[in-house]
Amino acid sequence: MQTTRNIYQQMSDEELGAARAELAARVEAVRARGLKLDMARGKPSPAQVDISRPMLSVLNADSDLFDGAVDCSNYGCFEGIPSARALASSLLGCPADQTLVLGSSSLLIEHDILGMFWRVGTCGHAPWSDYAAAHGGRPVKILCPVPGYDRHFGISADLGIENVPVPMTEEGPDMDEVERLAAADDAVKGIWCVPKYSNPTGVTYTEETVRRLAEMRTAAPDFRILWDNAYCVHDLYDEGDELANIFGLARAAGTEDRVVAFASTSKITFPGAGVAFVGASPAVVAEFSARMKAGLISADKLNQLRHARFLPDVDAVRAHMREHARHLRPRFEAVERKLSAGLAGTGCATWTRPRGGYFVSFDGPAGSAKRVGALCAELGVTLTPAGATFPGGCDPADTNIRIAPSYPDLPDLEAALDVLVLAVRAVAADLAYEERA
Amino acid sequence: MQTTRNIYQQMSDEELGAARAELAARVEAVRARGLKLDMARGKPSPAQVDISRPMLSVLNADSDLFDGAVDCSNYGCFEGIPSARALASSLLGCPADQTLVLGSSSLLIEHDILGMFWRVGTCGHAPWSDYAAAHGGRPVKILCPVPGYDRHFGISADLGIENVPVPMTEEGPDMDEVERLAAADDAVKGIWCVPKYSNPTGVTYTEETVRRLAEMRTAAPDFRILWDNAYCVHDLYDEGDELANIFGLARAAGTEDRVVAFASTSKITFPGAGVAFVGASPAVVAEFSARMKAGLISADKLNQLRHARFLPDVDAVRAHMREHARHLRPRFEAVERKLSAGLAGTGCATWTRPRGGYFVSFDGPAGSAKRVGALCAELGVTLTPAGATFPGGCDPADTNIRIAPSYPDLPDLEAALDVLVLAVRAVAADLAYEERA
Repeated sequence: MQTTRNIYQQMSDEELGAARAELAARVEAVRARGLKLDMARGKPSPAQVDISRPMLSVLNADSDLFDGAVDCSNYGCFEGIPSARALASSLLGCPADQTLVLGSSSLLIEHDILGMFWRVGTCGHAPWSDYAAAHGGRPVKILCPVPGYDRHFGISADLGIENVPVPMTEEGPDMDEVERLAAADDAVKGIWCVPKYSNPTGVTYTEETVRRLAEMRTAAPDFRILWDNAYCVHDLYDEGDELANIFGLARAAGTEDRVVAFASTSKITFPGAGVAFVGASPAVVAEFSARMKAGLISADKLNQLRHARFLPDVDAVRAHMREHARHLRPRFEAVERKLSAGLAGTGCATWTRPRGGYFVSFDGPAGSAKRVGALCAELGVTLTPAGATFPGGCDPADTNIRIAPSYPDLPDLEAALDVLVLAVRAVAADLAYEERA
Repeated sequence: MQTTRNIYQQMSDEELGAARAELAARVEAVRARGLKLDMARGKPSPAQVDISRPMLSVLNADSDLFDGAVDCSNYGCFEGIPSARALASSLLGCPADQTLVLGSSSLLIEHDILGMFWRVGTCGHAPWSDYAAAHGGRPVKILCPVPGYDRHFGISADLGIENVPVPMTEEGPDMDEVERLAAADDAVKGIWCVPKYSNPTGVTYTEETVRRLAEMRTAAPDFRILWDNAYCVHDLYDEGDELANIFGLARAAGTEDRVVAFASTSKITFPGAGVAFVGASPAVVAEFSARMKAGLISADKLNQLRHARFLPDVDAVRAHMREHARHLRPRFEAVERKLSAGLAGTGCATWTRPRGGYFVSFDGPAGSAKRVGALCAELGVTLTPAGATFPGGCDPADTNIRIAPSYPDLPDLEAALDVLVLAVRAVAADLAYEERA
């Protein structure tokens, strides 16, 4: 969001005409190159994925398939094998016996647990699906820090929950606003959070933010913080951001049932083929287990064993994540370098400088994002669809673009960023011209 | 269910007294042995599981991780990799593009798809959850062939669906009854089926039964056949039972949307760590995919790849299943041998002689099953809880016991069967005595 006028807005009509002509010529030159580049999703590059290949040799036909007393090759142990729960505990920040290790997708666990709140309720409270009928048709609401993660918003939208945007700040969600909304309305049943290296801003919630989330008064007694710690160990630098332990703060505040935390190894080992975790209060873990057991005898314990042996302790995780950072850091640095070189001082854009995670959040002039996305697509560069970082795909100021630099190799990424810079300048110049018409 | 009087009922009071004294002495002798044996669940034995160990060496750190054009080591390909869908197609009996390969548990897919019918409906029809409110509180019902699979009944019960028992015959569910119930009441929304080597009877539905299911008139336009083909290739003998292809019959009858089929490799490779499949009409697959995509980017494609390479075609599956049969057949034959030796001609029991699957269904005298289960437990032999094969755990005649012979080794199994025979005789004699009082 720009508050001062950008360079194109400040130009004379003649200067602006010349600038637009030059930008148009450059656009045509790029179009002629017929690029095909993708900065759309937070997907590790093939070389980055390959660093986890040794895990595929951890188990073979002759391996010991026991984890302590648990035979990982047969049914049983619904809650997950002990060593995988220990890994879950270290990633989620709650005791191992408050964790479950289920399947390969934390998103699916989020889907299932929200589905449970919806259909049967939580901790003795009425099902969320009953709320509207009992309250004159007012829908259940969930707070969505924006810009945020589109798939989170998709899960709540799929249930018919109203996604209520709240602005992100450099300290996490705007807590004045979150506290106001949560205290004022018992239809507000929760908040989606990616607390560390947030998607897409890269912001890590401050301790103050985490504390306020744990301690705030909520009108709904069954308010739930959906704490998707997707990037809990995903530091780009040896010195990573520190995230306060929300379980400790919630326990102290007597709000432990409020916190449901998620993580997975999708961006630690293999995307989509990792293991996924949930951690919550003993009461919420018990109710979720009871529901899930109706459909699940036990999750894939062999994959749990593979992971636990490949990542036996926090040091092994840290060493492995340093390998990831080796691939990701140059890409994030390329984003900063290219955006600075192309847009610093223009007044056309702001962007974040994350120290971890998978995304950079970029804001252009008001009304620019969809046009920038469309122009980039025309020029062969796929971006996350403009608006995707807002519920319903609706970015009211139409400024935000999520940059996902992890997948392309460095030359492709740099080429794509050059196109993005050019597109932002071209659209900004056009917008400045249209303002005068 | 016994129609004629058993040997204890036919005895004089004196003979019965002597028989009971002798049985009581034998019970005490067994009790003194302090056995600890388990015939409760359909769990392969450790030696049987070991035949799939070579699959754990199929992928290693140096493997090609592509399946055709699909990179199995990264996100994408929600529907499952091509070679795993081909395997799904051969097990489910529908075209590969009507299959999805999702996670490791078919039970969980059943849970999810029934949850979808419940919450949002299917093929444009109202959600099942709306039915009761629109019909004076009458609940949605699902037909449950009994004796049947307790976990199926648990899934529907968890949603608040009323499980309606219909008797199994040697040809599958009693189709006169099924047709009558399905045609009479639009609250009847489906039927649970294990069509081949049914759990626990081992019955394979006849072609006539399958045809009637596909063709029958249903009052509910969104009636669904939940076709859990869990034992589709699980033959004990080279000549297996033949199951008619329900998709072909339904397509011919114009009822293709009615059939939703499930299978998994849990009893082909590793229990709980296999891959699970669903197959349905293009419309139902599309609606289920759309819902599941809200929570799942893609399932574990590395495990799909491992399976597809280990079981590349129908011949490989067949050869592998012959290895399973080598472990299972002697156990099923021990059941037949021990039950025949101990109970044939007594009029106290009937049981099934399956040619595949994991269970034998046993019926003792009316009112005996819970007492037999309790006595076996006292003597150190765990059975599936009496009644578990009926919705709500309620076997009205209290006769049915599910025998799961797969897990114990042969000497243990024989010892457990000796205990079961003794317990049935002891309870039958006690019941005969109590009748006279």
